[in-house]
Amino acid sequence: MVFDSIGEAGHEQVSYFTDRETGLQAIIAVHDTTLGPSLGGTRLLDYETEDAALEDVLRLSKAMTYKAAAADLPLGGGKAVILGDPDEIKSEALFEAYGRAVDCMGGRYITSVDINSSAAEMDVVARETDHVVGTSDGLQNPSGVTAHGVFCGIRACAEHVYGRSDVEGLEVVVQGLGKVGRSLAEELLEAGAAVTVSDVDQEAVEAFAAEHGAETIEPESVYEQSCDVFAPCAIGGILNDETIPTLECDIVAGAANNVLAERRHADALRERGILYAPDYVINAGGLVTVAKDHFGGTYEEAYAEAEEIERRLLGMIERAAAEETTVLDAAEAYAEERIAGADGESPTTPRP
Amino acid sequence: MVFDSIGEAGHEQVSYFTDRETGLQAIIAVHDTTLGPSLGGTRLLDYETEDAALEDVLRLSKAMTYKAAAADLPLGGGKAVILGDPDEIKSEALFEAYGRAVDCMGGRYITSVDINSSAAEMDVVARETDHVVGTSDGLQNPSGVTAHGVFCGIRACAEHVYGRSDVEGLEVVVQGLGKVGRSLAEELLEAGAAVTVSDVDQEAVEAFAAEHGAETIEPESVYEQSCDVFAPCAIGGILNDETIPTLECDIVAGAANNVLAERRHADALRERGILYAPDYVINAGGLVTVAKDHFGGTYEEAYAEAEEIERRLLGMIERAAAEETTVLDAAEAYAEERIAGADGESPTTPRP
Repeated sequence: MVFDSIGEAGHEQVSYFTDRETGLQAIIAVHDTTLGPSLGGTRLLDYETEDAALEDVLRLSKAMTYKAAAADLPLGGGKAVILGDPDEIKSEALFEAYGRAVDCMGGRYITSVDINSSAAEMDVVARETDHVVGTSDGLQNPSGVTAHGVFCGIRACAEHVYGRSDVEGLEVVVQGLGKVGRSLAEELLEAGAAVTVSDVDQEAVEAFAAEHGAETIEPESVYEQSCDVFAPCAIGGILNDETIPTLECDIVAGAANNVLAERRHADALRERGILYAPDYVINAGGLVTVAKDHFGGTYEEAYAEAEEIERRLLGMIERAAAEETTVLDAAEAYAEERIAGADGESPTTPRP
Repeated sequence: MVFDSIGEAGHEQVSYFTDRETGLQAIIAVHDTTLGPSLGGTRLLDYETEDAALEDVLRLSKAMTYKAAAADLPLGGGKAVILGDPDEIKSEALFEAYGRAVDCMGGRYITSVDINSSAAEMDVVARETDHVVGTSDGLQNPSGVTAHGVFCGIRACAEHVYGRSDVEGLEVVVQGLGKVGRSLAEELLEAGAAVTVSDVDQEAVEAFAAEHGAETIEPESVYEQSCDVFAPCAIGGILNDETIPTLECDIVAGAANNVLAERRHADALRERGILYAPDYVINAGGLVTVAKDHFGGTYEEAYAEAEEIERRLLGMIERAAAEETTVLDAAEAYAEERIAGADGESPTTPRP
């Protein structure tokens, strides 16, 4: 049941779309548009049940509201899911039909890439609607902006913990050498940090180490490696009951999404005296880039705007310290206050 | 589950809207927009379950597709439900929030009155959206157009059964003296028909008989009254397993909605040799009026357009006779062919 599932989260709109020709089944959820049109990617997954798809799109769209609000962007939170096995259903006709569905949202929802959808699919979506970012003619390399934002976020953490934002000499372990992790490691090395890298792809690790002179570590030893900053840039859920007791760092600050297995693990980190920079705050550079793309602007402007993450995150860290809570709590309060202050009205009232 | 409930009916879009301030919970269903924007009323009901609300809005929106298509209107089928006890939830703020929800549909759905919503509520809705008809400044007295359309539909039936469309001397029993029934009875009397009227409100019956010189009959005897035409203009579901065997008429043609208890009762009437004019075909005058209101036009134009029901219904009757099927089947085929012929594409592809 949709209204029951929405519950207290108060999503403004949840729209189901079908297309007989292509068999498209899509759900678009708009959580909150108080601060601007909702933005969020389109995820293609072969969900076990329709209920599972609904729960996913509700959870993800709400997360986008907080991410955009905590990044001071004029955007709300939305998300879309297309149900089915990507290998079976993906076609140009499907994404054209989906593009028409997005267009039916009248600009209240702006779509982008997510799991199993890429720039190629967004190019097809763009034939039918203007309300799409992440196309192949959009701003390229958002990963570079994300990495730069994480770098700036690490400076904020260092400022709070060590009293200086300069990362020179800081020992940083970077988990994952994907686009963002690699870019972050490079920027840290250039700034004089002592970087140790790790990845499940051992060849990539060795090649990176040879090229940049970084230390390396086995993936299974990454959590217990003594360091100043642990920067998870790989998969989610890695901060959990197993790993948190073994951490030997002062700061966790990386680009990976949903890095906490559960919300309570933010408390567990705080109890261990480890400063955790909330993932959606520190990795907002990608969202900053697509927002810049949507509203009009250059890559350089996005890059510069991502630097604001340092000041913003430091404010949240200081608030958390003052209120004796987690930075995650402070980030949520920041986002909720921005929404509440936007017009004094309910954040769930549709405002087309 | 929404997609499961949609199933073969293939609704293009089903949108759930909430509003935290007012507690609004609304579902807007767009069945098909091949022929034009979807139009249908907003029903306020305290549904037992959310599922019941979904089933209702899916069924009613699909019915509106067929009604509009069978009336040659450039409209698709839509419907909306607002969940809750009307006595408890009705407020200006609720209908303003609902108006914003309607506006979020971007014109793909045009709303109007239905059970527990009237012109006063549509006036409030109109503060927030242009996509509304049935407001107090719209074309008045759609009941008069509906009655005139039913009158013309009776002429079509008489033409087929008796070989002459003139209703002079025809014995007609009108069940129900609401706005439409009263107006129909008056028009029939003026045209020289022998009219017998019935209503649960005995005073209204006597007053009407005294004023117009019509015959009267007890409500419980109305089905077995021997006549040429039985014109149900009261509640739905009255053509059922109990009443059909007792009917003593050649033609059933009236304004009441959902007059068949079940679809199979169209077959039961045909087996008894009774010509049944499908309710949504013969009572389309009201929809013609709101369409005229929406697209721009006068009451007189709507009135004249409703006369097309005679030609259109006669065509369906003749087709049913040729194909040895019910007029209901012929009407559905007519509607489906109009939709299929509109653009050669799927009727369920959203076309904003």
